[in-house]
Amino acid sequence: MADNMSGAITKFRLALIQLKVSPLKASNHSKVRTLVKEATVKGAKIVALPECFNSPYGTNYFPEYAEKIPGESTQVLSEIAKENRIYLIGGSIPEEDGGKFYNACTVFAPDGSMLLKYRKIHLFDIDVPGKIHFQESETLSPGNSLCTFDTPYCKTGIGICYDLRFPELAQIYTQQGCQLLVYPGAFNMTTGPAHWELLQRARAVDNQIYVAGVSPAQNEKNSYVAWGHSTIVNP
Amino acid sequence: MADNMSGAITKFRLALIQLKVSPLKASNHSKVRTLVKEATVKGAKIVALPECFNSPYGTNYFPEYAEKIPGESTQVLSEIAKENRIYLIGGSIPEEDGGKFYNACTVFAPDGSMLLKYRKIHLFDIDVPGKIHFQESETLSPGNSLCTFDTPYCKTGIGICYDLRFPELAQIYTQQGCQLLVYPGAFNMTTGPAHWELLQRARAVDNQIYVAGVSPAQNEKNSYVAWGHSTIVNP
Repeated sequence: MADNMSGAITKFRLALIQLKVSPLKASNHSKVRTLVKEATVKGAKIVALPECFNSPYGTNYFPEYAEKIPGESTQVLSEIAKENRIYLIGGSIPEEDGGKFYNACTVFAPDGSMLLKYRKIHLFDIDVPGKIHFQESETLSPGNSLCTFDTPYCKTGIGICYDLRFPELAQIYTQQGCQLLVYPGAFNMTTGPAHWELLQRARAVDNQIYVAGVSPAQNEKNSYVAWGHSTIVNP
Repeated sequence: MADNMSGAITKFRLALIQLKVSPLKASNHSKVRTLVKEATVKGAKIVALPECFNSPYGTNYFPEYAEKIPGESTQVLSEIAKENRIYLIGGSIPEEDGGKFYNACTVFAPDGSMLLKYRKIHLFDIDVPGKIHFQESETLSPGNSLCTFDTPYCKTGIGICYDLRFPELAQIYTQQGCQLLVYPGAFNMTTGPAHWELLQRARAVDNQIYVAGVSPAQNEKNSYVAWGHSTIVNP
């Protein structure tokens, strides 16, 4: 396994888990455990989960499903990373801290230690008459710092969903030496076909880096239907 | 005709002339005269020509076709703008100045006056083995300043071809208040399908502005085959 101190990217397998998220937190945890194991058996060294992997996506759900970090879900993620000896990008979960709620991504090392906690910076407020109305800022607060982590394969930067819409985040991560950006994201049936692929390809070409977007599976029974179409783009 | 001092964009018609460029300069001039007239009759208020509208595209052609600015071709452009009472974005021509050559775009007002001269900043050097080798920097020198112009309809920024590949130019123009960017460009049969549409859509969405790319027509008899596919993208 090559050392990444040189800054060069090393060949490895990245797995994206396009989970069909259930309203039962315990069920999501056990599905993730099974699917990460499966990806690891196939050779994945970094595995990424989607945005809100442990709860339905919706402003009314965020307070209900929110946890402390560290807490129950991050404990599960830590165990899964350690069991499989992989880097695990834990999609996101609603986080509660000091009475505020955040959309937070945690990343774990192969020894189970937590490497970073990233809070979504650009909250997603949309109002397209006749198509979709959604206001994440009704219940969530924004994050204010960028997060990267090093592996023997590459340096990786983290964004969540609507963060992808803002080119500056990807430009700064590139200046910091990242070769891969991972965006857990739940674009919807309006923004998905319009922007999901376009923005990932634009970030990749403009910055000459790899970009991945990890979405929950499409589920038309939900009030907010995720676009799916998890994607990896090369430079 | 509304005043644009408010910074708001006003509805108007933009025409892109996807010219089949001939090796005969006089023939290109007369074709442009006819086509701009036709666009004006159809209501165009701003008309844009493609990169190298008065000469074949190729490092060997640039010195041969180069002119002073002002010179023969810009005189023709000035007359055409004045005759039709339109803003004319004169694609580009090879310019000679002090023994150096530039890829230069000039823009003319409805009274025939020259509003700006923009020299391509990012010269296009490419070497994709088995596909295409081209090195614009063999004969051209780069420009070093950005150019915008105001109209009653919108404020417009100018780039040329490979300039489109660099997001910073579009970001700066947007900060300067531009609502439209026009890139005369001759992407080729390799970069065209890969990047021409993607980059214009990325610039438009990222900056929430209109973006237009104006190409010469595809002509497989040429040593350098332009992609064509002139495009206008909304935000």
